[in-house]
Amino acid sequence: MHLAFPTPAATAHEAGPEAPFDAGFDPLGAAHALAERFAATAVERDRLGGHAAAEREAIRASGLLALSVPREYGGIGAAWPTIYQVVRIVARADSALAHLLGFHYLQLAGLSLYGSAAQQRRLFGETIAGRTFWGNALNPLDKRLVGVPSAGGYLLNGIKSFASGSIGSDWLTVSAWDPLANAPLIAVLPTRQPGIAVQADWDAFGQRQTDSGNVRFDNVTLPDDLVLQPASRAPTAQTTLRSQVAQLVMANLYLGLAEGALAAARGYLREEARPWLAAGVENAVDDPFVQHRFGGFHLLVRPAQLLADEAAHKLDAAFRRGAGLDAVERGAVAVAVAEAKVLAHRAAIDIGSGLFELTGARSTSAKYGFDRFWRNARVHTLHDPVDYKLRDLGRHALDGRLPEPSPYS
Amino acid sequence: MHLAFPTPAATAHEAGPEAPFDAGFDPLGAAHALAERFAATAVERDRLGGHAAAEREAIRASGLLALSVPREYGGIGAAWPTIYQVVRIVARADSALAHLLGFHYLQLAGLSLYGSAAQQRRLFGETIAGRTFWGNALNPLDKRLVGVPSAGGYLLNGIKSFASGSIGSDWLTVSAWDPLANAPLIAVLPTRQPGIAVQADWDAFGQRQTDSGNVRFDNVTLPDDLVLQPASRAPTAQTTLRSQVAQLVMANLYLGLAEGALAAARGYLREEARPWLAAGVENAVDDPFVQHRFGGFHLLVRPAQLLADEAAHKLDAAFRRGAGLDAVERGAVAVAVAEAKVLAHRAAIDIGSGLFELTGARSTSAKYGFDRFWRNARVHTLHDPVDYKLRDLGRHALDGRLPEPSPYS
Amino acid sequence: MHLAFPTPAATAHEAGPEAPFDAGFDPLGAAHALAERFAATAVERDRLGGHAAAEREAIRASGLLALSVPREYGGIGAAWPTIYQVVRIVARADSALAHLLGFHYLQLAGLSLYGSAAQQRRLFGETIAGRTFWGNALNPLDKRLVGVPSAGGYLLNGIKSFASGSIGSDWLTVSAWDPLANAPLIAVLPTRQPGIAVQADWDAFGQRQTDSGNVRFDNVTLPDDLVLQPASRAPTAQTTLRSQVAQLVMANLYLGLAEGALAAARGYLREEARPWLAAGVENAVDDPFVQHRFGGFHLLVRPAQLLADEAAHKLDAAFRRGAGLDAVERGAVAVAVAEAKVLAHRAAIDIGSGLFELTGARSTSAKYGFDRFWRNARVHTLHDPVDYKLRDLGRHALDGRLPEPSPYS
Amino acid sequence: MHLAFPTPAATAHEAGPEAPFDAGFDPLGAAHALAERFAATAVERDRLGGHAAAEREAIRASGLLALSVPREYGGIGAAWPTIYQVVRIVARADSALAHLLGFHYLQLAGLSLYGSAAQQRRLFGETIAGRTFWGNALNPLDKRLVGVPSAGGYLLNGIKSFASGSIGSDWLTVSAWDPLANAPLIAVLPTRQPGIAVQADWDAFGQRQTDSGNVRFDNVTLPDDLVLQPASRAPTAQTTLRSQVAQLVMANLYLGLAEGALAAARGYLREEARPWLAAGVENAVDDPFVQHRFGGFHLLVRPAQLLADEAAHKLDAAFRRGAGLDAVERGAVAVAVAEAKVLAHRAAIDIGSGLFELTGARSTSAKYGFDRFWRNARVHTLHDPVDYKLRDLGRHALDGRLPEPSPYS
Repeated sequence: MHLAFPTPAATAHEAGPEAPFDAGFDPLGAAHALAERFAATAVERDRLGGHAAAEREAIRASGLLALSVPREYGGIGAAWPTIYQVVRIVARADSALAHLLGFHYLQLAGLSLYGSAAQQRRLFGETIAGRTFWGNALNPLDKRLVGVPSAGGYLLNGIKSFASGSIGSDWLTVSAWDPLANAPLIAVLPTRQPGIAVQADWDAFGQRQTDSGNVRFDNVTLPDDLVLQPASRAPTAQTTLRSQVAQLVMANLYLGLAEGALAAARGYLREEARPWLAAGVENAVDDPFVQHRFGGFHLLVRPAQLLADEAAHKLDAAFRRGAGLDAVERGAVAVAVAEAKVLAHRAAIDIGSGLFELTGARSTSAKYGFDRFWRNARVHTLHDPVDYKLRDLGRHALDGRLPEPSPYS
Repeated sequence: MHLAFPTPAATAHEAGPEAPFDAGFDPLGAAHALAERFAATAVERDRLGGHAAAEREAIRASGLLALSVPREYGGIGAAWPTIYQVVRIVARADSALAHLLGFHYLQLAGLSLYGSAAQQRRLFGETIAGRTFWGNALNPLDKRLVGVPSAGGYLLNGIKSFASGSIGSDWLTVSAWDPLANAPLIAVLPTRQPGIAVQADWDAFGQRQTDSGNVRFDNVTLPDDLVLQPASRAPTAQTTLRSQVAQLVMANLYLGLAEGALAAARGYLREEARPWLAAGVENAVDDPFVQHRFGGFHLLVRPAQLLADEAAHKLDAAFRRGAGLDAVERGAVAVAVAEAKVLAHRAAIDIGSGLFELTGARSTSAKYGFDRFWRNARVHTLHDPVDYKLRDLGRHALDGRLPEPSPYS
Repeated sequence: MHLAFPTPAATAHEAGPEAPFDAGFDPLGAAHALAERFAATAVERDRLGGHAAAEREAIRASGLLALSVPREYGGIGAAWPTIYQVVRIVARADSALAHLLGFHYLQLAGLSLYGSAAQQRRLFGETIAGRTFWGNALNPLDKRLVGVPSAGGYLLNGIKSFASGSIGSDWLTVSAWDPLANAPLIAVLPTRQPGIAVQADWDAFGQRQTDSGNVRFDNVTLPDDLVLQPASRAPTAQTTLRSQVAQLVMANLYLGLAEGALAAARGYLREEARPWLAAGVENAVDDPFVQHRFGGFHLLVRPAQLLADEAAHKLDAAFRRGAGLDAVERGAVAVAVAEAKVLAHRAAIDIGSGLFELTGARSTSAKYGFDRFWRNARVHTLHDPVDYKLRDLGRHALDGRLPEPSPYS
Repeated sequence: MHLAFPTPAATAHEAGPEAPFDAGFDPLGAAHALAERFAATAVERDRLGGHAAAEREAIRASGLLALSVPREYGGIGAAWPTIYQVVRIVARADSALAHLLGFHYLQLAGLSLYGSAAQQRRLFGETIAGRTFWGNALNPLDKRLVGVPSAGGYLLNGIKSFASGSIGSDWLTVSAWDPLANAPLIAVLPTRQPGIAVQADWDAFGQRQTDSGNVRFDNVTLPDDLVLQPASRAPTAQTTLRSQVAQLVMANLYLGLAEGALAAARGYLREEARPWLAAGVENAVDDPFVQHRFGGFHLLVRPAQLLADEAAHKLDAAFRRGAGLDAVERGAVAVAVAEAKVLAHRAAIDIGSGLFELTGARSTSAKYGFDRFWRNARVHTLHDPVDYKLRDLGRHALDGRLPEPSPYS
């Protein structure tokens, strides 16, 4: 398979002068190595589904779990453009595993955005020391998990659905409804403890190995010092930046899927496809209609790449602004991320479905697994409706109105 | 599931005054009954794949195998518009089983178009008497099956791929390369005989229960009286009408898929979907973007229905012209069928993929199996490239040039 | 120019046994003759704009003003499918003049739907006797024309904008706001009388010769016997059918534009265009990309034709139901008309703009006037927003809700 | 009108340390000032057409004719990204005048790419000294102009069509067919001299004030020292870069048109449009369908902007490589320019036509002149067929094949 896409050079040295992490570490090289490894088994694992235990170990061994941990806490301290490149590179080969990795970075971003200095010191430190893998149990649409204040913290009871990366995780970010404050709190918890049960009941037709599921909490004690944001604290431009970090993870997953699908189609067309009888050419790649459609696909991917890269730079600048970030700056990031996400969404769906018009009937054999691009993109692009992103973008372009901060915008 | 689409009334009485078959037989009613039965297990059978043994028996029991057999041979003698309606109705529930049924009708059409009076008498009679199910081993792109003339017939050796409906069939239509004539012959053969091995090696990601596979022939004797068209006989407007019968089977399968997908989306939106937060409505069906997209989907299906119906009427008239059919009349059918096929293709793919923009993340659960619409449509619409259909249509619209008769046009 | 499209045979004999009008009258032939005449000057008249005085006389002389007048009043009594075919045929050559003719039929439809028997007798009779041309001053969005009840009728004062066909008309349909009833009345009036001033201030960039403008009313007396529908009378399924008559006039104008644009492109490609260097073909019509795009255009027109024809048949049946028409039957017509209108809208805009991708730079010379297809379609398709038609269609397809009767639906 | 688009800062100081030109000159500011001036009369001048005499003087007075002249010859020596920004800014207000300016830069680029040091010194010097406006007579598809070698040069006879900016120009770039070499030569000539007749016979429906026409040459003497490239000299990567300079002028003109159309739509929607009845909102900009479509338009413009900017940087680097440029580097520029051009083409056409779906019927009044966006884009985007650009892009993406150097690729 052809997974080589030109990627800008990036190193571990972006965030500052000193480098506690191995100064020679090459994040994009590590990502490419992971992608190559995952590509070899992607079709089979897509078919089998199930827990990505071995693959989590490979990610852990790659050193990439430390990529977004600030240098002062022993991490690589990479900038967001590099982090998203890593996610995208892995997604070309396997968008489910890239989801695990991207959501790990998302949880750590939450720690940066919400956490106190003490919490950051403790938890980033533990992430480096324990090579900790983070998962998500924060689905804001599901309010069934309730956190009742009790001595020195909260007692958690209930359930969270669509918890990506929860199975096999070491720590979870959790949101819970605080009935006294009538608002949600955000906290972190070690996954493996009595009272927390992660259920492997994710049964979607795509993104099968995202270790997603329902997480049940049965009288789980949440101590105050693991609460990143109590329900009583008002959201700020900084804290609501988390949804943009998440949205841009999505965009890069979609984009990696689109790139992976395009690479798969190219490889097949060059090496396996037979030209159509009526084309009168010797090789499928010489069919003018194949070339024309492929040019169209290329023009879906290229703009999405440029916009995703631009959005990553804007997000990075906003992230580094810290508590000084204001609503207008945050809104500009939200617009840039929405632009990238819509284009990446379209590229992944249109190429994932349309590539077969070029590769033809024989390419539908299960041995190629080419349908996984559409299935993965289709499942994942439903995180939030693209029509409301377009509305937000139109509203902004019409009268400058910024997207309202929400878990999705 | 909502499978009810308005269908024009049709009865068994179209072809003539006397009715050897049960005069009260209602083909569309029988098709709806089959569809309802198949719908109940469609998701599970799609998952399992495998031979459609039980379903073939249900089709057999429905009486629909006799639908296209002329009345003079004891069949129902339905006109093509009714036959294609039946295929489409079944395809709404299960496009793989509808494929089996549609290809049964295709083989019988071949008998009408190529066969001598004696062959028709014998084989139609046997179809009625034995409730015979026909399969296809005619893939014209695969020339590996060779028929060497021998005493009183031919000796067949080789293989045919993409043989739809071959597994579990009673009779097969076969094309074989005659090396002396340097052209293909077309014949029929009982499937179950020494030397014929049907291999269940179809592994595409859609249309999984079409009983397709490779058929191997090992020193099979083909007697002259089962040769419908020897290699030496030049094709005529009548005989090349077979490809149009086949193409319109495809179009109706695609259309049934599009209708089925639309019905599934409607059912889900009405009964299960939750409105998006930002929509500010109580029910998903009240979201203006949902309505707008659904209107767009509706406008993919409606024209395809009208064009498919019109093409069926034109094909029926051409079919009844028999040997008197000329190239211009045949060409007009080919244009009408191509129009319908392109629109049905687009409707099936666009709705099969796009419905999820409306139904959202929860609708991707394997329990609904909604991805099968796209998978089935995707695999099946690759029979021949849509771009060459568009070229044929453009060429005709520009200068009146008719599609060149071929196995695909 | 190539304006020949296959049209179904139609005669003047549809509506009943006796034929006061010349029994040999051929409406479609008359329409083709008009179209040929108008085509010769269409480019120049589009450039000049201005009043269509001479063209109105040609229409009058053609006999087509009587086409929709019932036979019992001396007219031709054609069914709606024929009437719409006539509009479409003329629109291929000149959509502005076809608008004049189509709106003449619309006003007469109003007389049938709203008028008393006495009014119909008088006004249809006068239409035949005086070869009367009807215009429109009914714009429901413009409520500046007020009708104050006065002795034996109303006193009209105010203005109506977007009055199509008002300049040079003999009679006008008028809506006026009745301040006592707080609702609009609908009436007819002779155009040429003191107090009515038709202003030729239509300055849109398309549909330039539609004789549209603002109509000013200055103390105009409207006698009761010219009021077709007083403000106090509640709308019925029958009376609100008028908007569907109007919408289907639009659809056929758009469709005629699309057909005319396609014919112009075909003529140019066959006779004038040079193939692109890189195509490596001798004639532009042999360029595979030209053929492919032209096939796509063809597939915009064909479905619109079928749906427009089907809608015309449904409308005709509903029209003949008279006062017995119910809301569900009316709604079914509205759905069919909306389907046709959306497809015709798309066809006219997409072909009007896209044809140039095929015909190239030299075809933009003013001498061909090919831009008029887009300009005419663009101006005319803005009568009401296509997005709300799609919403109506989606809403109906989702839950069976019928379009709410309005001047636009 | 709203013409303000964010543009990156640019100054006159890009090309080197010393600045013979006024160091404070602000090219983008000058472009915005010109655009504002031209916007005030754009609708009227579009209607009238004719020679842009006064506007040429305004451009001359702006100082922008010197923008691309190297500093060593007294010019501003701006880099290509700035030059293209200037063209784009002017095109937002008036794409015909921007065409004049862009083609002036194109002719000067030819001097840099083909001309000897002596020619550059003389002609750049003259351009600065005489504030010379350059025009084009190089149409490579028109081979009717013949240059027969004669003593000390050539004798030119014949005609050149589609000569943009020739009317009112001071100097022309000319290509002529050398019958001895059987190849074209490229030269420059003062426009105003006996034997050269520029005919104002451009009559396209858009880009009306581009001062285009046919140029006739009647026994015009071309001295050898005005020949930039004799017919015998083989094209190089450097010389064939001229077509990329030209293609990127086109792309920026299209992009300016798209931006101008979007700004016009936004201004109208905010200030003049009435919301549709059925929308149930107070302002047109609050209609969800308006917002959604506007978001879609925005997503046509943004990627085209990014790709055009990227292509400008690549072109600039290649331009500065001079004779050292190789075919692969040139090909990479051609790919980047093609990407930008296709997206800008689509944006200009789709927004120019589609904006009316939002702004509605009243916005078609001639007083707004909103149709000029489509007309200008439609005429100008036919310079070379977009389908062959897509083919080139697909071919490159499939197997790395670079666009073949030609006047269009």
